Amino acid sequence: MTDAIQSRFDLARQLATEGGALALSHFQNRDRLVIEAKASPQDIVSRADREVEDLIRAGILAAFPQDAILGEEGGAQTGDSGFLWVIDPIDGTSPFLAGLPHWCVIIALVQGDETVAAVTAHPLSGEVFTAIRGQGAWLNDTPMRCDPAHRITNSLVAIGASHRTDPDHVSGVISGLMQAGGIFYRNGSGGLMLASVAAGRLGGYYEPHMNPWDCLAGALMITEAGGRALPIGIDPEGDLVLATAPGVFDDLCAVVAKAPPDQNNPDQNYQARMRTPSGS
Amino acid sequence: MTDAIQSRFDLARQLATEGGALALSHFQNRDRLVIEAKASPQDIVSRADREVEDLIRAGILAAFPQDAILGEEGGAQTGDSGFLWVIDPIDGTSPFLAGLPHWCVIIALVQGDETVAAVTAHPLSGEVFTAIRGQGAWLNDTPMRCDPAHRITNSLVAIGASHRTDPDHVSGVISGLMQAGGIFYRNGSGGLMLASVAAGRLGGYYEPHMNPWDCLAGALMITEAGGRALPIGIDPEGDLVLATAPGVFDDLCAVVAKAPPDQNNPDQNYQARMRTPSGS
Repeated sequence: MTDAIQSRFDLARQLATEGGALALSHFQNRDRLVIEAKASPQDIVSRADREVEDLIRAGILAAFPQDAILGEEGGAQTGDSGFLWVIDPIDGTSPFLAGLPHWCVIIALVQGDETVAAVTAHPLSGEVFTAIRGQGAWLNDTPMRCDPAHRITNSLVAIGASHRTDPDHVSGVISGLMQAGGIFYRNGSGGLMLASVAAGRLGGYYEPHMNPWDCLAGALMITEAGGRALPIGIDPEGDLVLATAPGVFDDLCAVVAKAPPDQNNPDQNYQARMRTPSGS
Repeated sequence: MTDAIQSRFDLARQLATEGGALALSHFQNRDRLVIEAKASPQDIVSRADREVEDLIRAGILAAFPQDAILGEEGGAQTGDSGFLWVIDPIDGTSPFLAGLPHWCVIIALVQGDETVAAVTAHPLSGEVFTAIRGQGAWLNDTPMRCDPAHRITNSLVAIGASHRTDPDHVSGVISGLMQAGGIFYRNGSGGLMLASVAAGRLGGYYEPHMNPWDCLAGALMITEAGGRALPIGIDPEGDLVLATAPGVFDDLCAVVAKAPPDQNNPDQNYQARMRTPSGS
């Protein structure tokens, strides 16, 4: 690992933690904020999203002004250092809005066409999930591993979906998962679910389409924690994501390949990708 | 409310909290316990389940020796006081086992054919959800309400399932929910999801079959919090459960009625129940 990556990783961890504390203050005061600001709950989460992203962007710009940034809220900023920061200030805005605990702050660091470092902070529990390419993955300061005993039949398999998702596709995946002896899970934060696979808590994750700020960090954590993932394109348009504990990968690919194609993502060619998985 | 109910409610809250603390110590030490006991993780959760139920049973017997008890682990004990305690020592054993936060301790108090008091303790967050029939529902000491603004289109709707559930039925419900503009949620603890509906965090809950110790407490919380629920039979064999925020009920009944019938629960006659909902 180069110092260039280590120094950015250290900053990412610091900024995700600081951003998480700011988001947490909005979360804990959202009823009062709604009344004071005469705003809707949606306005409050939007404001928290913007403020957290601004905090993280300012921290990056101060330390690495030549780096590029892609954030969910603020769009893209170019740079010529070769590093790209990909930020989701609050992943899981629906749970955040509802008062559920499943939301997190995500920062992924991309160099060329690879994610090289990743941080997912869960302020409510104080857990920070991290990974550095080739170095491993950690939950706070302890190495984390996918559970090598996990199979599709003995673990919870998370299925991501959004209002963009084709209902027939996702329900076909769930039906196939259950017919294979599995059971589904969904808490509304894709980033937290991916991190939970890396931490050995969930058996795997599938979503037919995710934005890069939702998925790049978690996918690196899973492969660095001994799991397997279909390659994800570093593409602002997003990609499908399938990432699992090692013993779940082949079976989940087979389940997804049998489901009706996702009509809302016709370009994914996902059945071919499931048939010839090249996951690491 | 009679003193007979109030005194039992106070005890239920105390015992769920004490049982929760015991379960939490197992949860936090489960890796060490597995090694020390040369046991599997499943053995540890089973031991925690038994110990928590024993603690709760002993507390009931000491205070109300004439009361009947139905527990998930220890089976049924008869009594002649007219009160039945229904206990789930750890609801959400899969998440507990996996290190996920979604598990709770549930106590429901039944008099005749009605649930009259309910406690669901979530030790990890310190949240205790309670209800007394006709008196209201509380999160810790604050009254809780279903969210009157929740609709199927703007809330997370929880769908319960187990390895007993017909995959075609549950995937049909999920597909219908998404076609109606909704989105599903499942964290592995039915009791915690029902309590979360009552707390205004989820829009509703449906599961084609639940055991009484999983559902009686949460269903009372939802109706006492201003929500609607299909009547649940006080039956050790269990029943279907549909309980929601007020603005979600009719739409979720319609979604369930359109799904393929649950072949694993052929006696539920669920489509007729959805067509003529008599929820309070």
